[in-house]
Amino acid sequence: MNCEILCVGSELLLGSVVNTNAAFLSQELSTLGINVYHHSVVGDNPDRLKDAVAIALSRSDLVITTGGLGPTYDDLTKETVAEALGLKMVLHQDILNNMLIAFRHYGKDFPKNNVKQAYFPQGSTILPNDWGSAPSCAIEHQGKTVIMLPGPPSETKNIWNKYAKAYLEKKSDSVLFSVFCRIYGIGESALEERLADLLKNSLNPTVAPYASASEVVLRVTAKAKTVDEARALVMPVVEQIRTEVGDCLYTTEKNSMAEVVFDLLKEKNLTLAVAEDSTCGLFTTKFGDIDKEAQALYSGCVLLNAQARQNLLKVDNQADEAADAAALAAAIKEHSGCSLGLAIGKMHELTDEAGTPLATVQIALDGPYGTKTIQTPPRRRNDRANFDVITVTRALDFLRRYLLNIQL
Amino acid sequence: MNCEILCVGSELLLGSVVNTNAAFLSQELSTLGINVYHHSVVGDNPDRLKDAVAIALSRSDLVITTGGLGPTYDDLTKETVAEALGLKMVLHQDILNNMLIAFRHYGKDFPKNNVKQAYFPQGSTILPNDWGSAPSCAIEHQGKTVIMLPGPPSETKNIWNKYAKAYLEKKSDSVLFSVFCRIYGIGESALEERLADLLKNSLNPTVAPYASASEVVLRVTAKAKTVDEARALVMPVVEQIRTEVGDCLYTTEKNSMAEVVFDLLKEKNLTLAVAEDSTCGLFTTKFGDIDKEAQALYSGCVLLNAQARQNLLKVDNQADEAADAAALAAAIKEHSGCSLGLAIGKMHELTDEAGTPLATVQIALDGPYGTKTIQTPPRRRNDRANFDVITVTRALDFLRRYLLNIQL
Repeated sequence: MNCEILCVGSELLLGSVVNTNAAFLSQELSTLGINVYHHSVVGDNPDRLKDAVAIALSRSDLVITTGGLGPTYDDLTKETVAEALGLKMVLHQDILNNMLIAFRHYGKDFPKNNVKQAYFPQGSTILPNDWGSAPSCAIEHQGKTVIMLPGPPSETKNIWNKYAKAYLEKKSDSVLFSVFCRIYGIGESALEERLADLLKNSLNPTVAPYASASEVVLRVTAKAKTVDEARALVMPVVEQIRTEVGDCLYTTEKNSMAEVVFDLLKEKNLTLAVAEDSTCGLFTTKFGDIDKEAQALYSGCVLLNAQARQNLLKVDNQADEAADAAALAAAIKEHSGCSLGLAIGKMHELTDEAGTPLATVQIALDGPYGTKTIQTPPRRRNDRANFDVITVTRALDFLRRYLLNIQL
Repeated sequence: MNCEILCVGSELLLGSVVNTNAAFLSQELSTLGINVYHHSVVGDNPDRLKDAVAIALSRSDLVITTGGLGPTYDDLTKETVAEALGLKMVLHQDILNNMLIAFRHYGKDFPKNNVKQAYFPQGSTILPNDWGSAPSCAIEHQGKTVIMLPGPPSETKNIWNKYAKAYLEKKSDSVLFSVFCRIYGIGESALEERLADLLKNSLNPTVAPYASASEVVLRVTAKAKTVDEARALVMPVVEQIRTEVGDCLYTTEKNSMAEVVFDLLKEKNLTLAVAEDSTCGLFTTKFGDIDKEAQALYSGCVLLNAQARQNLLKVDNQADEAADAAALAAAIKEHSGCSLGLAIGKMHELTDEAGTPLATVQIALDGPYGTKTIQTPPRRRNDRANFDVITVTRALDFLRRYLLNIQL
């Protein structure tokens, strides 16, 4: 089964919204073993939408649309798909009733236009939208399957997770089971070289790499009659990867390195205080993303104003960046009363022989297992946001290795 | 002139990379007055790439590609475009020489495959890539223009800003001039209602809205023989918008509200200390994005660990969220020695009559113009990242209005 993701919305063509729906759905489809061969985007224009739907249906077994399910005259996805498939639009009275109740509840008049949100192509399966007003639907006709999701990413995600994914899974008589091996400290190409045979010749399970700015994720997926059978195919390959990359494989269970570090802190009953300089709070936001329990374990400070740094941490700026980071780590530990102090220091700028602007950052730790400092390898500093993400991941890995007492 | 953006790369179809190139190029093309009618994405597959290039050339005057310019066998964008246009590939000896010099400089052997990066469709204009190894090119043939850019977003942005944009501007005998009116505090639909006539009927200048999670940007663009003539068309419309929205128009010159607040702090010779609770450092990262001078004016703390909060700020948690935020603002101001203390408090969770999970946040300010507190309106809390972005923008606007002494 091959799939096309067709996103409808002029805001995407104006660039005012980044197409995160296409990326999210692609990842999800990939874990279901469905190949995505095309993404396309068109605006809220009837003729171009019609052409795009026709092209998508001609080359793909499954078409997933996002957007164009709203109540206004230029929301035309359902109508256009129905026309392309030769189907009538049918009123779903129960959905109209729910809409009328909701409007009455909020004391608002029901706009006549909104009736169209209760019409769906004949034969549709309704996928409820718990977070918005536009219900989704799925339809199978003449060997093609079309799933229509709304535009707002939070609504699309919610409908996918609760209803659309299960709809697709039901169509298959086998199940898929995946393990994500998250690896830090080996580049994608080096890893591909070391695992060349596994990556190229594995059929069941398949092994697929995903690279981000700062890590590589290998997804190992097997197909079988039951989850247990699929897991039995996956696990030996996971162990083979673990043998190859050692402690660079930092998790097969959690979603981020921050979660792994949080579990280690909790396990060892430690609290963490972070002082960030060059990364300006990015480390703190990554840690804050986990949950409230994680938040209660840590504190973060960005004390770039010299007076505030002096008043709160009683530590002067030092010219030597390594010494400065170490002093900052000790000071944040002492003045916060946390068991661990981590400092992400200033950016040290340099250029290589070819004149490329590079930078390094000193990272220091002060805690129950002593004081440690590392310097990040020189990297291009043109893309600042990317540079900071890499620095923060390096700091998290430094902390992980410190807590596990493995080589830094 | 209408344009299609064709992005080539299997990593996009796997969802491991979000297509920020398409959004960036769309915004840029829109400021040049070029309509983008399609985005498409295909993987590194020769047949599907060939079909996608053919479709794009059949329906668009200008095709901009990203990706597929690398040295490996599956990097085929230039070759495929050349074939579709009926053009030969030609060696650019000067580019090959530069590549040989760079490899020699780093003491590496020159891989034979890389020669292909010095071949371009006959008649190409080379667009240099200062940040990567794959040079870009542009070609005009039979009424069609194709610009081929690399995949990595930082390289694409750099080539666009330095070379590709100028290449397109040269093709036009008129110039475009735009002003971006950044508006906070009026929703997109309310704004569209109030400015309906302007938005629907303006031709030169055009007025186009962009909505993000927390603000609306109106782009006013005029076309004329000279920049001065275009500016003379734009400015009266900008003033008309200012009259309509008043102090909700927070800038026509800066790129973000953080920059506007920073300028106000600098002008008034004030320093800022921020204590974040629910937003976990996001405010601090926004402020840190500006520049080093901005960073030196502020400090940010996320003190979710109770002991660290007590040790550094000597302030107990209070059950009443408004009182807690006010106490936190006063404490961060006092202990940092900054002239202004801002606190973004805890999230207060509630549900509406329909059972929807909502939340509000208390924000407090303590500074030379007294102490002020606001509560954000209840909002859905399903999408946490989005919720925090809205809270941070509200806090920035609160600070802006405080500094300007205008109604909160």
